[in-house]
Formats: sequence, C-alpha cells, structure tokens
Amino acid sequence: MARLMQSLEDYHFPSHRLLRTLSDPSKTPLVLVACGSFSPITHMHLRMFEMAVDYVKQNMAAEYEVVGGYLSPVSDRYNKAGLASAAHRVRMCELACDETSTWLMVDPWEAIQPDYQPTAVVLDHIAHEISAILEPMCRKPARVMLLGGSDLLQTMSQPGVWSLSDLDHILGTYGIFVIERSGSVVADVLAPLTEWSERRGRNWVENIHVVRQLIANDISSTRIRQLIRQGMSVQYLLPAVVIEYIRVHGLYNEHEEFRETRSSSMPPLCRLERKGKALLGTKSQLLAVPAAIPMARCSSALGGRAKLRETARVDEANQTDGEGSVVELEVEVEVEVEVNGASDRSRGRRPS
Amino acid sequence: MARLMQSLEDYHFPSHRLLRTLSDPSKTPLVLVACGSFSPITHMHLRMFEMAVDYVKQNMAAEYEVVGGYLSPVSDRYNKAGLASAAHRVRMCELACDETSTWLMVDPWEAIQPDYQPTAVVLDHIAHEISAILEPMCRKPARVMLLGGSDLLQTMSQPGVWSLSDLDHILGTYGIFVIERSGSVVADVLAPLTEWSERRGRNWVENIHVVRQLIANDISSTRIRQLIRQGMSVQYLLPAVVIEYIRVHGLYNEHEEFRETRSSSMPPLCRLERKGKALLGTKSQLLAVPAAIPMARCSSALGGRAKLRETARVDEANQTDGEGSVVELEVEVEVEVEVNGASDRSRGRRPS
Repeated sequence: MARLMQSLEDYHFPSHRLLRTLSDPSKTPLVLVACGSFSPITHMHLRMFEMAVDYVKQNMAAEYEVVGGYLSPVSDRYNKAGLASAAHRVRMCELACDETSTWLMVDPWEAIQPDYQPTAVVLDHIAHEISAILEPMCRKPARVMLLGGSDLLQTMSQPGVWSLSDLDHILGTYGIFVIERSGSVVADVLAPLTEWSERRGRNWVENIHVVRQLIANDISSTRIRQLIRQGMSVQYLLPAVVIEYIRVHGLYNEHEEFRETRSSSMPPLCRLERKGKALLGTKSQLLAVPAAIPMARCSSALGGRAKLRETARVDEANQTDGEGSVVELEVEVEVEVEVNGASDRSRGRRPS
Repeated sequence: MARLMQSLEDYHFPSHRLLRTLSDPSKTPLVLVACGSFSPITHMHLRMFEMAVDYVKQNMAAEYEVVGGYLSPVSDRYNKAGLASAAHRVRMCELACDETSTWLMVDPWEAIQPDYQPTAVVLDHIAHEISAILEPMCRKPARVMLLGGSDLLQTMSQPGVWSLSDLDHILGTYGIFVIERSGSVVADVLAPLTEWSERRGRNWVENIHVVRQLIANDISSTRIRQLIRQGMSVQYLLPAVVIEYIRVHGLYNEHEEFRETRSSSMPPLCRLERKGKALLGTKSQLLAVPAAIPMARCSSALGGRAKLRETARVDEANQTDGEGSVVELEVEVEVEVEVNGASDRSRGRRPS
C-alpha cells in the first residue's frame, strides 16, 4: 500500500485547502460534505461539488460563500459488496482531490472509526472542526451542508431507512444539496419529507436544494467496477491517477456478489438504536462485533423483537502491515430501530 | 497563441504513437478516425475511442487489432457557430491526447486545408499515410475505420445530407464504429442505409458497428460552451489541460448565435459536387471563394439549378502572424449536388 491510513491517534482534521478569507465578510462561510463509499471515486462524485458551487453562486450568493469541500468515505464496517478497504478508498479520494482539484479535501475520520458512524454524526464532527478553525476568523459560524445524488434523498423519503431524529438533524439543522439524476423525480421524494418535518414543526424542505444537472452524467461506482472486472476501459470516467492506483493495487478484479440492488455509492444507511451482545468470542472478538451491528440495512420496518444468529467473519486487520488474522465467531444480536418516530424493534441484518 | 498551427508546407502525418508490431501477426491492424469540430474536445470524444477498442476486443479480436487512433478537427472553412479557430481546436486536441492518452494522435491535415474536406477524403488521406508506414511491416494492408456518435449515423440516413457515393466510400470501403447515445434508435437509422446500399449491390450494414454505451455520457461541446459562457464549471467533463487552455485564451466567452439546432460536434457535412465561379474579386479572392462553397449544408434536396448571390466576408489569414485582411466580395455560385444517387442541381447555402 502506498501509505498507511491514519489511525485515530494520529488523526488530524485536514484544513490546508480551507478558504479562510471571504470575498465579502458579511457572507456565511459554507462547507460541503459528501458521504459515501467512493469505491472508487468517480468524476461524478467530484463534479457534484462543482455543480453545488455553481448553484450557490447562482442562487445563494448574497448569503453564502463556499470555503471548502470534504469527501468522507465510509469505514470498512459498512461491508457493502464492492467495497475496497477504507485505506484504499481514502487514498484514492486523496489522490483524486490532490490531482484534479484546488479546494477539495478528504476527511478520513469516518473511515478510521472502529464503529460505523451515521451521516448526522459525521456532519457534527466536521461542523465542530470547522467552527474551531473558522470562528476566530469569521464573525458568523460557518455552515456545513451535505451533498449527494437524488438517490440519497430518495432513501431519506423511504420509511425506516433513516431515523427521523437523524433526518431532522441532517435536513433541519444542516441542509442538503441534491444533484438531480436523470430519471429521478424529486417532487415525489419531497412529499413524505415535508409531512414528517411538519409533524415535528420543522421545515426541512427549505434546506433541500435541488441542483439540476445540465449535462447528464450517470457514472456510478458500481458500473465502474463492472467495467474493470470485464477488463474494459474506464478512462475519462474517473481521474487517471485513480485508474492507475486501481491497476497497481489490483482492485475490483474479483467478482463481487451481486447483492447490490442500486447502482449508487451513496447507500441508504440505517442508523440503528442498537442493543447488541456477542455470545461467543474472545475479548478482541467482542470489540469487533458491535461494529458489525449498525451496518445492518433495514430491509423492512417490521415491528417485534428478533434474534439474528449468524456466522460472522471478522478481520482483525493489523494496521502496521495490512495483514489480518481471520476468526470465525457466531453472534446473536438484538437490534432496536427507530422507525418514523416510533421506536420499533426490528430485525437488523448484516449484508452477507 | 501557444503555437502556430502547421501549414500545408511543413505538414507531416503524426505516427509517433502508432503501434508497429501486432500481438498476433495474423491480425489486421486497425486505425480509428474521428472527424468533428472538437470545439472543444470533451471526455466524450476521447472515450469514444476507448469504447471502440473494447468493442474490437470483445467482438472482432480474431481479426483486428487497434494500432492507432486519430482525431481530425474540421477546418475553419466549416464556419459553424461556436467554432473556435482551427489552430485552437487542433492544439486543444493535441493537449488532450498528450495528457490523457498513450495512443491517440491528432492529424491536423483536414484542419489546415484551404478547402473543406469531406470525411471520405479525410479517410483516404489517413489510409494512404497509414499504408505507407505499416505496409512494409505488416503483410496485410491496415484497415481505417471512422468513429462517431449515433447522431452522425443519423445524418447519414437522412436523404440529401451525404452524397451516396461518399456514403458508399465511407460505409462500403472503410466502415464505421457508432457509439450509441441514449435515446437514439439505431434500428430506424439502419433501414434507409440498408436500402440504399442494396440498390448499389453493396452491404454497408456489415461495416456499421454499433457500440453500446454502458455508462450514459452525453457531454456535448455545445453544452460545454453554454456552461463556459455562463461562467459555470466544466471540470471533469473535459481534460483539465483543455479547460486551462480555454481559460488562458479566453475561448467561448462570447455569445455565439444560436443557429445550432443539434448539440453535436459531429455535424452533417454535405459533400457538394460543385461548380463554382467567383464573379468579383482578385486572384487571391478567387482562391478563397471555392472554400466557402462546399461548406453549404443541404437544407433541402430540391432539384433544379439555382444561383446564389451572397456577400462573402473572406479572411485572408496570414499564417505567420495570425492577422488577416478582410475583403468583401460578391459571389454567384452554381452548385450541383448528388442526392441519393440522382445528380440533382441544388441550392447550396453557406450558413451565415
């Protein structure tokens, strides 16, 4: 590996490209954050940021100025099919930002967490770091907003995929830029979100900014991996430096199981209010297990209490040499998931 | 300007990236040629070549091996709206090839011609140059094939846009790779081409290879120019080196007349079997006039003989310093156009 990923101990928030002086000091500094797998990062991911900046210039220029953009790759604990290791994904994002952008940065904080971190928590983390840097300089607090494709917003409108408290935090407190993909109808998606937010006496929709794509560009990481597996060219769909990295490290050549039903690297992540217990295992295994639980994707919002028995394969990755010892353990977990405000107990299944 | 374009005198055919040894000597070397405006060149243009190579590997590997690819930008004589000077367009193509590819080249021959050159003639030129280089090495003659989007094939199926003899030359002798664009129906386009070729006792369709796009990618130069004029980001849609070139040279900032009805840089070019005469003008003007005639786009396939009177503005560009003296002259031209096999005389109008 070209470079080992930061550990939690030596983590520092990247801010070297953050704009510290506003062209107009009366404006509010705005930071864009995209959460996702980035396996691998594509021109589509990178272009989302450019489109959001154009949108801000055209629609919100009196109030906001974009001062930075962050990619936050999901950790290895979200073991979706087709996910290269977090170390690889962080590095590919860093190479892409360094080579192709003057203002984008990669925050590895989410990627190096031992547990899966919900998007709301990632935004809290970045907002905290940003305010520590920018508040001494700017009089107003900076604003942090999420950035994603319209498929991300679609998952937010599906009952049971996101907890209402998280939606309220993301859409009510932060806000989101949604890049409209061809074929997606944003209006349908906004209806349930409007209803849920009104029930809470909030207005989420005013914080949802739909950015129209003037040039259709439906590059997805899933398709990229398919092309790579078939030995086909992916040139001009992602930065050349990322293609070279994939080649050197032999990524995405193995046939992944086709469990993916969506061609997105922005998967719906279910934040489970969990109670988990590991039945078998050593101390180190016990440490590994809780991380597996919140990766569960809610396939349904069934009520009731369920026990899930599965055999988990846990990689105890050694941060120093990248080698890991694999242990098998059997776990039984109980999960409790908040579904649309009602705290239901639901079956949480880890994609396997 | 970064560099003056080659003149006809110092022109040489670029072959530095041509593969001279085949992995299997029994195969036929294949060269891909894309003709177009490239104003500016985009990732879509470049990706066409990659997709065609994948197609050859998957469908024609027993017979062919791609040994080179050429971009041939149209000359200034084709004065379509939004066309930067040929010098700029050639340079942008060269920068894009040099920076992003290991095998693509730019042939400036078409761009530096004083007259507009039909696609069939460009293919003849490249085939001639290629055979001079490759035939001493390979036993078989190399094959040259055209490469374009499905909109190019669509113009070929429209009566009166291309001459039948040119279609026969391009599709019957050379062949074409057509990158299918989303929304276009290739089957409808093939029907008239099948009929016309059968009337000639030829089989054009066997030389038409339709390459499906696995990742929709509808970047067009027209859209790129619109974004640039609006001060919006075009990053990740074309090579960074081309974006920088456009910025440095201030290209595409002025509002072009919206005469374009198609968002393609592969315009239908009518090859007129012309008889032209300049009524007024000096010797140098007489030299300049014929170039204006074949740029005519056939707006209809009306029969009869027509005289066209127009005031032409002729730039006598000085190749040395880029400055030109402008003379006004009035010309009356008679054009004869071959429409679907019948040599009709038709009105040839220069887009103004």
